[in-house]
Amino acid sequence: MNQALRDELRKIVGETGYLAAAAIAERRADMLGRPGELRSEALVRPASTAEVSAVLRACHAARQPVVVHGGLTGLVRGTDAGPGELILSLERMDRIEEIDPVSRTATAQAGVKLQALQEAAGEKGLMFPLDLGARGTATIGGNVATNAGGNRVVRYGMMREMVLGLEAVLADGTVVSALNRLIKNNAGYDVKQLFVGSEGTLGVVTRAVVRLRERPRGQQVALAASERFQGVVALLRQVDQALGGRLSAFEVMWREHYELVTRPPATSVSPFAGAHPYCVLIESQGDADAAPLAGALEAAQGAGLLADAVVARSQAERNALWGIRDDVGQLRRLAPIFAFDVSLPIAAMEPYVAGVRSRLAAKWPGAHCSTFGHLADGNLHFVFAPGSADEETRRAVEEIVYLPLEAIGGSVSAEHGIGLEKKRWLRLCRTPEEIALMRALKSALDPLGILNPGKVIDPAA
Amino acid sequence: MNQALRDELRKIVGETGYLAAAAIAERRADMLGRPGELRSEALVRPASTAEVSAVLRACHAARQPVVVHGGLTGLVRGTDAGPGELILSLERMDRIEEIDPVSRTATAQAGVKLQALQEAAGEKGLMFPLDLGARGTATIGGNVATNAGGNRVVRYGMMREMVLGLEAVLADGTVVSALNRLIKNNAGYDVKQLFVGSEGTLGVVTRAVVRLRERPRGQQVALAASERFQGVVALLRQVDQALGGRLSAFEVMWREHYELVTRPPATSVSPFAGAHPYCVLIESQGDADAAPLAGALEAAQGAGLLADAVVARSQAERNALWGIRDDVGQLRRLAPIFAFDVSLPIAAMEPYVAGVRSRLAAKWPGAHCSTFGHLADGNLHFVFAPGSADEETRRAVEEIVYLPLEAIGGSVSAEHGIGLEKKRWLRLCRTPEEIALMRALKSALDPLGILNPGKVIDPAA
Repeated sequence: MNQALRDELRKIVGETGYLAAAAIAERRADMLGRPGELRSEALVRPASTAEVSAVLRACHAARQPVVVHGGLTGLVRGTDAGPGELILSLERMDRIEEIDPVSRTATAQAGVKLQALQEAAGEKGLMFPLDLGARGTATIGGNVATNAGGNRVVRYGMMREMVLGLEAVLADGTVVSALNRLIKNNAGYDVKQLFVGSEGTLGVVTRAVVRLRERPRGQQVALAASERFQGVVALLRQVDQALGGRLSAFEVMWREHYELVTRPPATSVSPFAGAHPYCVLIESQGDADAAPLAGALEAAQGAGLLADAVVARSQAERNALWGIRDDVGQLRRLAPIFAFDVSLPIAAMEPYVAGVRSRLAAKWPGAHCSTFGHLADGNLHFVFAPGSADEETRRAVEEIVYLPLEAIGGSVSAEHGIGLEKKRWLRLCRTPEEIALMRALKSALDPLGILNPGKVIDPAA
Repeated sequence: MNQALRDELRKIVGETGYLAAAAIAERRADMLGRPGELRSEALVRPASTAEVSAVLRACHAARQPVVVHGGLTGLVRGTDAGPGELILSLERMDRIEEIDPVSRTATAQAGVKLQALQEAAGEKGLMFPLDLGARGTATIGGNVATNAGGNRVVRYGMMREMVLGLEAVLADGTVVSALNRLIKNNAGYDVKQLFVGSEGTLGVVTRAVVRLRERPRGQQVALAASERFQGVVALLRQVDQALGGRLSAFEVMWREHYELVTRPPATSVSPFAGAHPYCVLIESQGDADAAPLAGALEAAQGAGLLADAVVARSQAERNALWGIRDDVGQLRRLAPIFAFDVSLPIAAMEPYVAGVRSRLAAKWPGAHCSTFGHLADGNLHFVFAPGSADEETRRAVEEIVYLPLEAIGGSVSAEHGIGLEKKRWLRLCRTPEEIALMRALKSALDPLGILNPGKVIDPAA
């Protein structure tokens, strides 16, 4: 980066808006916390959309590559930055601009933390339904850029379904104001869709309008155990039918993972006496009491689908059951680990999981393999701890997890995105024509390729 | 269109797949049924994606403009075709390829009728929640291309939210297979979004994978009357909170429209003794009995929000109440009419409607003006019958309805789309940067401009 550009950027964002290499090196690029992933000489923290625009205009003129940073809770090396790359962080644009309780929308700057928006909505008797473990750190801009998912997609969809409007800045500094607040708006192409889930490669999200929901009158939580995977699948349909629209989470844990998070040193305790191949956390939102959920589980038990089940009777019990599902922190004890985030048709899930687990076990006998996930969405997480994290091991583990997905119509990323980490596997789950179209969009919106270069896709050959 | 191209097209689609001018002139372009809107010399009806691809390859080589036809139930002149334009109809691609009851998805060709898909899902105990009056004629491909909305958007979203995967053919004949079946798939850009709601200008949708839901155990319907618009707005929030996720329709009718559809010669009868400024049809899906809905209405009545309310006690009564809302056919008695489909923030709705109605009444005293719509989505329909349909009248009516939308963040099209009819008004609800981006997408995907030329946006100057 040349001195003239550096001076210009400093002038645009001011002294508090500019960080140099030493301060940057103290940061982590993402939740993985690998050393040396942020090697930039400069980081700018613009305080307004106008400043973001001016920064990008200057970078565009100088053909300066830019890496966009939100809350840095990613898992796919989407925010790594090399020595020649400028980092643009949205962290100072952290204002909730409006909560409209009549239209039930919120307008927030990109740097607003997810949890801050959840709480602001709650204060008005409303709810922003996106929720994920990193809520205290992840930002709305990052949630948009990565099309965040989380625990309640079965009911509310992903971030894409919650975004009504966006403001984004293109690579050349053009501000595209598409701050629609309407649930229905078919006036021309819905251009905001371009920026959702494109991981900062097509534009920089600066503001978003999101749809809010009424705050549910009650939340009911149960934990069910089943001996058979097909019992779990049948349970999903039965419970979804019985709750008639109130099912808000259906989180399955395979035994090896369940034991990890319910035995010391983990602090959660299983409510079940014995061990079961599958445990499912079920949540409904909107029921004032537990009777509908309990009734649905009794019916499932009567149909032979369940080995055991408990329904929480207090907020403390609800928190305790969610605590089992949320304690993925136990996986850190097993480091080094590889974390996967695949999706696949539910009908293909049982043989796929069995195949992956047995191939991993054959190659790394005794290594821990956690399997859990959002079954209703077809989304599974694997966390595997083979005792080593070198590139050769990574490649071998990835082949076992990813290669079978191609034949069954699965995806290498349900929700984490592609970043740098999964780029080589994109071809397993997207057709050559889809990838060519992605490249055409990249060329149309960022012809010089300065936005997050090399992330998600490689430029056209 | 030259003879060589005609011969080539005839060879691709065969004799049953080819229609000439006389047969075309018997068709109507859309629900408006204007004369002379289909002036093409040729219409092709390909029977497969491969044939669609071959047709477009040939047209691309010859720079032949192509207008895409689905079920022809549009309202914005999106399917008009001039003498030099080839019509490509998807009507022969009408096969439901798969209903997967485990992953709860359906795969259908573009020409499948909406109602056929609804019924096929129902036979498997599932539901495809998109629903609109033209269900027997509208097609899945058209629903995708126009991002169809309808009566249950408040609960299930628009067609965009239901489409998991698409197959589309680009202007040059490239088949983009993006037939994702997964609820969560963040592997690169979600390119299918380009084709949803772009009215056939960026590609021809040939197949779609859609998400299905469990068939609700019950449907409850009520009709409520209120003296004040603010009562209706408060009722929406109260009922939505009380039903906790089961509210599936909230349809408001202003008095002038309500009287049109509940007095002879209309066959519906109002369940209320007196007349009220606002009547609201409320539906919940998923409740086996009417108690929750009745309870919510009692609470609203207790809070002084309602003047009257009835809850249907049988399927016949439910059908009767929906019959009031569905009998938009009464509007045909008033022909010639202008039909509008705007959306705007709920907080701006009361003064906007009052202003539009009073300006229309001032200019055309005594002319009928129906106002009704999907209030929860901010979507209102106006149907105005000034007694004349000439261009000058149209322009004057459009100015009264559309111009105030700019200042309040409204849209000239909530769900019908832009087509030819609303193109001149697009600038009221999209920024210049959004429109420039639409043009950039059009140039990137259809550089020769052969797909639905002149629809939605004009090419870059």
